[in-house]
Amino acid sequence: MNFRSDTTASVHPAILDAIARANAGRVNSYGDDALTHALTARLCACFDADVEVLLTTSGTATNAIALAGMVDPWGAVLCHREAHIETDECGAPGFFAAGAKLVLIDGDAAKITVAGLHEALSRNQRGVHSVLPQALSISQCTERGAVYAPEEVQALTDAAHAAGLKVHMDGARFANAVAHLGCAPRAAAAGVDVLSFGATKNGAMAAEAIIVFDRTAVRGLDRLRKRSGHLVAKHRFLAAQMLAYLEDDLWLALARRANALALQIAAAAGDWVSAPVQSNHVFIRPGARLLAALRAGGADFYDWGPHGDEARLVVSWDHGADEVEALCALLRSLKTG
Amino acid sequence: MNFRSDTTASVHPAILDAIARANAGRVNSYGDDALTHALTARLCACFDADVEVLLTTSGTATNAIALAGMVDPWGAVLCHREAHIETDECGAPGFFAAGAKLVLIDGDAAKITVAGLHEALSRNQRGVHSVLPQALSISQCTERGAVYAPEEVQALTDAAHAAGLKVHMDGARFANAVAHLGCAPRAAAAGVDVLSFGATKNGAMAAEAIIVFDRTAVRGLDRLRKRSGHLVAKHRFLAAQMLAYLEDDLWLALARRANALALQIAAAAGDWVSAPVQSNHVFIRPGARLLAALRAGGADFYDWGPHGDEARLVVSWDHGADEVEALCALLRSLKTG
Amino acid sequence: MNFRSDTTASVHPAILDAIARANAGRVNSYGDDALTHALTARLCACFDADVEVLLTTSGTATNAIALAGMVDPWGAVLCHREAHIETDECGAPGFFAAGAKLVLIDGDAAKITVAGLHEALSRNQRGVHSVLPQALSISQCTERGAVYAPEEVQALTDAAHAAGLKVHMDGARFANAVAHLGCAPRAAAAGVDVLSFGATKNGAMAAEAIIVFDRTAVRGLDRLRKRSGHLVAKHRFLAAQMLAYLEDDLWLALARRANALALQIAAAAGDWVSAPVQSNHVFIRPGARLLAALRAGGADFYDWGPHGDEARLVVSWDHGADEVEALCALLRSLKTG
Amino acid sequence: MNFRSDTTASVHPAILDAIARANAGRVNSYGDDALTHALTARLCACFDADVEVLLTTSGTATNAIALAGMVDPWGAVLCHREAHIETDECGAPGFFAAGAKLVLIDGDAAKITVAGLHEALSRNQRGVHSVLPQALSISQCTERGAVYAPEEVQALTDAAHAAGLKVHMDGARFANAVAHLGCAPRAAAAGVDVLSFGATKNGAMAAEAIIVFDRTAVRGLDRLRKRSGHLVAKHRFLAAQMLAYLEDDLWLALARRANALALQIAAAAGDWVSAPVQSNHVFIRPGARLLAALRAGGADFYDWGPHGDEARLVVSWDHGADEVEALCALLRSLKTG
Repeated sequence: MNFRSDTTASVHPAILDAIARANAGRVNSYGDDALTHALTARLCACFDADVEVLLTTSGTATNAIALAGMVDPWGAVLCHREAHIETDECGAPGFFAAGAKLVLIDGDAAKITVAGLHEALSRNQRGVHSVLPQALSISQCTERGAVYAPEEVQALTDAAHAAGLKVHMDGARFANAVAHLGCAPRAAAAGVDVLSFGATKNGAMAAEAIIVFDRTAVRGLDRLRKRSGHLVAKHRFLAAQMLAYLEDDLWLALARRANALALQIAAAAGDWVSAPVQSNHVFIRPGARLLAALRAGGADFYDWGPHGDEARLVVSWDHGADEVEALCALLRSLKTG
Repeated sequence: MNFRSDTTASVHPAILDAIARANAGRVNSYGDDALTHALTARLCACFDADVEVLLTTSGTATNAIALAGMVDPWGAVLCHREAHIETDECGAPGFFAAGAKLVLIDGDAAKITVAGLHEALSRNQRGVHSVLPQALSISQCTERGAVYAPEEVQALTDAAHAAGLKVHMDGARFANAVAHLGCAPRAAAAGVDVLSFGATKNGAMAAEAIIVFDRTAVRGLDRLRKRSGHLVAKHRFLAAQMLAYLEDDLWLALARRANALALQIAAAAGDWVSAPVQSNHVFIRPGARLLAALRAGGADFYDWGPHGDEARLVVSWDHGADEVEALCALLRSLKTG
Repeated sequence: MNFRSDTTASVHPAILDAIARANAGRVNSYGDDALTHALTARLCACFDADVEVLLTTSGTATNAIALAGMVDPWGAVLCHREAHIETDECGAPGFFAAGAKLVLIDGDAAKITVAGLHEALSRNQRGVHSVLPQALSISQCTERGAVYAPEEVQALTDAAHAAGLKVHMDGARFANAVAHLGCAPRAAAAGVDVLSFGATKNGAMAAEAIIVFDRTAVRGLDRLRKRSGHLVAKHRFLAAQMLAYLEDDLWLALARRANALALQIAAAAGDWVSAPVQSNHVFIRPGARLLAALRAGGADFYDWGPHGDEARLVVSWDHGADEVEALCALLRSLKTG
Repeated sequence: MNFRSDTTASVHPAILDAIARANAGRVNSYGDDALTHALTARLCACFDADVEVLLTTSGTATNAIALAGMVDPWGAVLCHREAHIETDECGAPGFFAAGAKLVLIDGDAAKITVAGLHEALSRNQRGVHSVLPQALSISQCTERGAVYAPEEVQALTDAAHAAGLKVHMDGARFANAVAHLGCAPRAAAAGVDVLSFGATKNGAMAAEAIIVFDRTAVRGLDRLRKRSGHLVAKHRFLAAQMLAYLEDDLWLALARRANALALQIAAAAGDWVSAPVQSNHVFIRPGARLLAALRAGGADFYDWGPHGDEARLVVSWDHGADEVEALCALLRSLKTG
């Protein structure tokens, strides 16, 4: 019962097939190929917008390249204290953006509010003595599994734009958010200028996209990708993965399934659930003793939070119904135990 | 007749199969998996050394991460004026190493000599006013297709170490060099501290390895890889590619074949050949008019050098004998025409 | 009644005289001069330690060069949320240290406790996904005017060293701390590895020193200073300022006087005082209306804190007793008004 | 007979006096003071242009801040192989501009020609694989003491602008160039976008100015200066130096005198002179044996060039006529010996 992370999952067969099908003959490298061109068209249709697309092989790369194209070295990115770019990328944004800072904001379920945004801005008002806030980055869904409603996203992007900030969205699990909302993809990123659109955690092998909605919000993305080593030579294989991911809305089907299984787990965990279950994440806070019992019962997961009493359970696209049911049974037995 | 680059080649079927075979079940991510552990053991055996291995998806990444782990921000890397790290990586070494400089050396066929190394050192002797030379980087084979003999490599690494420099080798096409030399892999990198070992250009999809022979020569590689976005989540698929590449010396078989085809082309090109043909590269300098005729005849390739009279022809592992023979026939007809 | 900052003060006549006296003939540049050598000896005596000294012209430079020599680009510096390096240096530490991060700690009066240090360490334990904490930076006195007792400093440096961290001290106003403590200078920095020793705010024109107690705690300081443009050509004039500053303990006399005047102001402000008065800073929180009245009465100062109800009053070495008394009178009248 | 460098010179009495006169009372820090405002007006008049001015304490700082404001991290600065920014600043441009590269150009007397500029541009045409040339930097006078005529500068700036490059001028010894040319200051920098205007080497203590002619050519200079630690707190003392330097054209009088003394030395050195003598520099190539004899005779200077047979003699503003005459006599005696 491995619920550590959706990065442990396998590759969806349709995506593996697409890789194999792309392997015919010699093809121009570095993105000048038919599959890559087709993908851009496909994403324009998907988001109903004239987008620019850059592919990479990691979420850290998409976030850091995007942000480095949005802010200056003397700039700052506002983000949540629990944002992946703050806690899990080993300082990548500061590295890519030549020392630009992250300014941290608090908020429940790792969500940012307009009030939190304004408070953070008020902390950096000493002219040249302060770094210059230039971008807001929000995660959809958040590191606590929460999903912003389209109107919440719109309110944040409006407030950010009004303050002269550009807006980046970390959509490593964007599929789970859209699946939860049941809205058009663009609505889940309403007003966002640049989206990190992930596929790896939801069925791809290694494929992530920087999707630029507003070209005036970025500078130098092409060279930022190349000089950071993220312009893959045999680029067709990234495009092939992403095309298969989008084909027949596979991405949404996989995310809906994982979300539904997460709700099953949440139901079994009952009042232990410690954060809104709106994606493929379930956070529970049964206390340290019961966490140990859960592990002894065969469940594998990461502890979460600072106190050792909370756990994060992540459902992957390829979790079997039986495996989830086994976890649910274990949870129920511990609760009634 | 596409001879632009070996980056346009397809993936070898055995490597594609290995990817598919690796796709079973959930597996720990970020390199803590059985295939990755097996690969390290396999490379230790291959190089008859206790090496440390880090995988990435691009040659630019392996070079830049390796060098950033070898030099300080105030340091310098000595390399050839035509080195890939100088001409084709959009400043990646300076970016990864926080402004460290490349100090350029001249030399025939893009090879560095001990004398050239010493001359470059003499240019940076102004104490704190100069950057501090800390590493030498050589390419095996070079950007001009030339191969260093083991004793040449040893002489350079000896001279570099005597001067307090560490030695990096860009082995994006290391297979072609070893195939040409017919020596043990370690001999082709004799004395080298860190090797960028490429597989992508010789049959893999996207797999490159940083191979560390001397752990004291590097610092922080793990975090340099992570913060540059090059720690791929589903890491098993990189290891699978590299294992298949090494299995039964597939890498050497593919390189030997490409090298042999390059010699066929060189024979057809005769006295047009403008650099030693020791790998899968053939440089010819027939003049601008005949280059145009070559293109008109259906050959696709890159111009080379500053004068528009030279071409680079690169053979890939998957070039058909017929395609090479067609090029040879065209060359012969133009030469006698 | 200008109490905005001690950076607005003039240069002490003895220091100006020393500059003039240093202006005789041609002298080797870049620090290879008699005054610079004498200063190093003088600081060794002052701190009773075999120290290495580098001079610059700004406090931001000393802090950022020191920290960049102490941590790697993938490292982190732990500091207080209100530390000058976090709030007032426009991201200098991240810039100099190539993207290294500041990890923030809370604490009263801008002081860090051992518990706070441990809590911050616990936040960065995700292996390569986290930045690597490598240094602690504390301010003596703090940005809230508080002074660490020698045993507090020792406890922090012991805890930091035990955790594998190096310790930097921002001593932009180190004189005020030593004057308050009445201890030996080294005791006020007990266990500290590298001290930013300021003179500019306490009577010099532009002279700050990086004082290295433990040479093994730093790398590359010489070149970090040069490549950041902080190796001043006519270096004798920096040394001359610093020598005069230390001569006959001028630095302590000036700081004692400013500290004493601050206590006078605090006495007048009574229960408005909102932070310990242990240096040349007085923080008062009379509320927004009375702050406006204070300004209307002729006092000039900076608001402090997030709520607009607090002020920072800074006494300089050159404040006249009458000017301070005028402020005290105004404070008393407002309090009784 | 110390002719090592003009950085060994003393401070001109008028400039020292100005520093003392500026030391009256408390004054706003960080450049918001009357002297700084007056200086900007003075430089606008001097250059007959609406310029923006930023002061620092070192030439390396002015060059590196200016260039970092002109190019992106993925950009390149074209400069001469012997340019100070390439050879003597320990990699400062790459550090300040986050890894941006210097692309080197050859040329006699360290001068760049339009042809050399075009050749360098042709070397970086591989799209995202190449760094992006964004600026040209020329030195007036050059590191070989040569001066560009106004029409030469105009031709270079025209060619650079036509190629989409901005133009920076390193004017560490701009005074010597203008004194030689006898033209208006702006003509010596015809078409230049940003000028590093030095005073330190020609009589100031530590004062250099970034003079921006075209505000659209730069971004973020204010914060680049602050975050690199170059916004000096007691800024009035920098402005005071620069104002005194410009007063009654002191700068030109000092430079004219040094230039004239250099011509005296050149006359004595006769056919040993190895570069045009157009400023305060004299390069001679008498061979290694005679250089040793020159040293034995009491002359102090730096060797120059790669072969140990050449010397650089630099005249400072404060060299006595007798000291210069002593050197001339020594040169004459060695020539006739």
